[in-house]
Amino acid sequence: MSTLAIVGATGAVGTTMIDIIDSRESVPWSEIRLVASARSAGKKLTVRGREQTVLELKPEVFDGVDVALFDVPDEVSAEWAPIAAARGAVAVDNSGAFRMDPDVPLVVPEVNAAETANRPKGIIANPNCTTLSMMAAMGALHRAFELKALVVASYQAASGAGQAGVDRLYAELSAVAGQPVGVRAGDVAGALSAAGLSADSPFPAPLALNVVPWAGSVKDDGWSSEELKVRNESRKILGIPDLKVSATCVRVPVVTTHALAVHATFGSEVSVDKARAVLAAQPSIVLRDDPAAGRWPTPADVVGEDPTWVGRIRQALDFPNTLELFVCGDNLRKGAALNTYEIAETVVTSG
Amino acid sequence: MSTLAIVGATGAVGTTMIDIIDSRESVPWSEIRLVASARSAGKKLTVRGREQTVLELKPEVFDGVDVALFDVPDEVSAEWAPIAAARGAVAVDNSGAFRMDPDVPLVVPEVNAAETANRPKGIIANPNCTTLSMMAAMGALHRAFELKALVVASYQAASGAGQAGVDRLYAELSAVAGQPVGVRAGDVAGALSAAGLSADSPFPAPLALNVVPWAGSVKDDGWSSEELKVRNESRKILGIPDLKVSATCVRVPVVTTHALAVHATFGSEVSVDKARAVLAAQPSIVLRDDPAAGRWPTPADVVGEDPTWVGRIRQALDFPNTLELFVCGDNLRKGAALNTYEIAETVVTSG
Ligand SMILES: NC(=O)c1ccc[n+]([C@@H]2O[C@H](COP(=O)([O-])OP(=O)(O)OC[C@H]3O[C@@H](n4cnc5c(N)ncnc54)[C@H](OP(=O)(O)O)[C@@H]3O)[C@@H](O)[C@H]2O)c1
Ligand SMILES: NC(=O)c1ccc[n+]([C@@H]2O[C@H](COP(=O)([O-])OP(=O)(O)OC[C@H]3O[C@@H](n4cnc5c(N)ncnc54)[C@H](OP(=O)(O)O)[C@@H]3O)[C@@H](O)[C@H]2O)c1
Repeated sequence: MSTLAIVGATGAVGTTMIDIIDSRESVPWSEIRLVASARSAGKKLTVRGREQTVLELKPEVFDGVDVALFDVPDEVSAEWAPIAAARGAVAVDNSGAFRMDPDVPLVVPEVNAAETANRPKGIIANPNCTTLSMMAAMGALHRAFELKALVVASYQAASGAGQAGVDRLYAELSAVAGQPVGVRAGDVAGALSAAGLSADSPFPAPLALNVVPWAGSVKDDGWSSEELKVRNESRKILGIPDLKVSATCVRVPVVTTHALAVHATFGSEVSVDKARAVLAAQPSIVLRDDPAAGRWPTPADVVGEDPTWVGRIRQALDFPNTLELFVCGDNLRKGAALNTYEIAETVVTSG
Repeated sequence: MSTLAIVGATGAVGTTMIDIIDSRESVPWSEIRLVASARSAGKKLTVRGREQTVLELKPEVFDGVDVALFDVPDEVSAEWAPIAAARGAVAVDNSGAFRMDPDVPLVVPEVNAAETANRPKGIIANPNCTTLSMMAAMGALHRAFELKALVVASYQAASGAGQAGVDRLYAELSAVAGQPVGVRAGDVAGALSAAGLSADSPFPAPLALNVVPWAGSVKDDGWSSEELKVRNESRKILGIPDLKVSATCVRVPVVTTHALAVHATFGSEVSVDKARAVLAAQPSIVLRDDPAAGRWPTPADVVGEDPTWVGRIRQALDFPNTLELFVCGDNLRKGAALNTYEIAETVVTSG
């Protein structure tokens, strides 16, 4: 049996991590340490029926730890994951700090579990939630048909911006619900300020009754950091350095579960039936694809679910060897805490 | 001066049509007749300061009419547009009844105004609102760079399903606002039924706190009618019979204004600067493209606006001669009533 530390146990991802650990039948951990900043140190949380005191992040918390999960902001991971590794723990990091480091594997267990052993720095990175939402499906289709190109448009949930994003969306919805807004330009913004909502939001524009074509920070040539992560992380995880990728990332007024419209081009012949057979054989994918019966995935169906749901599979009419798909994944579970946890179990069970 | 009839004057599109006519400085109509079903006949509505009685749809209402606008369901247009034409009116139809008829031009005045003269049946069709939202921008870019292929994902507003769609979205938002839903599968549906909302909705799944990857009816091979309209109507309007098109149409919890993420490939070399210059020169396009300053179009900005707004213009990193764009258009104005009205004015001013 091994010792696990969860750094950031009090956040949106950390809270989901505790849920996931609680719901497992058995876990390989004889001890689980909960860690956060001085703000939350001393707080009591219960994991698998045992009450734990949240510890303040200090080098000593990693002594005797086998795997340390980091669910904290980038700069905290950048500083502390190497400290955990130096104390002998394998650090599994959910932030963006190490994902593109060539000495850090970027892992989705269904796709590249073997990479977890290849960790010269003692650090393993977990992908961005938008990329991760489609990786199980794309990995399976790539093994079968050789993926060449991806054009992606996202429908990203508010909780991708943490608990602050969820709180803001609910506050905005209360301000606009039942009001005849949305009939003239600026009415949504007007309703929000009339309800006393501050302009200081985790989102760069009103999200209630709106969609916002921006996530992350400003990069070169008009790209957002989120869009470049989809490109660069997909290439690294799938091991296709020249994969063609274009993404447009858009925030939508959904609490949890990211959705993606994916246009995927392959090197060999594909068909809807063959793709369905490949996806249906994956334990971590739910195929929900029968429009005549009103069956396709929506975010509301997928919240709280571990698998990725896939539907709306169509053969592109004018593009050879190309499929259209609609994919939904819970950004707090498979998109963050669940995948990180699966990496941790892979590390201790594969030795 | 000419005579105009508005058939369906009492609906979502018809009401927007009256707004548009009211807001014009001058109009070429000496008489405007308002027409609906027997349900609304006798109702009084005011157009350009003059009170009018809504007439019941009968063949005689078209006597002496120069242009008859049809803002009614498909089957009503299919029956009545030919009757209006037989009585000497030019019928401009907003429904789907005639769009793909080879003897009926499908017109966006900025793109193919001359086609209005080519109307053997006396009928001119107005495109579907999703297609129409991107046509002014795509037409201008096609003239400059020769459009070859489009991959489109839509973010479609509730009012695309008429007044019933708007009413349903508000009812759903009131049911979920302020409630901690969305944390487990089915919570949104649960909140709706707890609030007594009937399962009978214009949308095939809950739309509040959700996105629904379906619009229209079931067509072959998993496609929705809305997705095939984007393909077939784009080809016809732009006059590119072999244009490659793949669309995924998704409804989002927005009241009005459709948004589209567009991946557009051209036959000649493009750049972001050249594309911006082309779009900025169009009177019916607003360019809003400065992410560092938080400037891109969102539906909330565009409601009630006549122009199409375009932003997030990027050169695809891995696809030659390809641009990514985010386009927003008010589906009730340019997407329906405004374009129809512009066709009507083109018909009477070009003789
Ligand atoms: N939300 C998602 O969908 C998602 C998906 C994938 C990856 N991620 C990544 O996961 C990480 C956590 O995200 P989140 O959404 O859970 O954020 P969050 O809700 O804001 O939680 C942040 C956590 O980090 C802790 N923390 C902050 N500063 C710290 C410090 N100086 N020392 C120690 N602990 C500190 C906080 O503890 P206190 O209680 O003491 O403040 C809290 O537990 C981020 O890197 C994020 O980018 C998030
Ligand atoms: N909403 C959009 O974004 C949009 C965009 C592009 C195109 N369109 C198309 O425009 C048309 C109208 O859509 P809408 O959203 O305005 O629908 P709506 O709100 O349901 O209005 C329907 C209109 O048609 C009239 N009507 C219905 N049956 C009739 C009949 N048998 N005889 C005469 N009039 C009849 C109604 O009059 P009563 O008051 O008498 O019932 C009402 O004025 C549809 O074909 C739609 O597909 C809509």
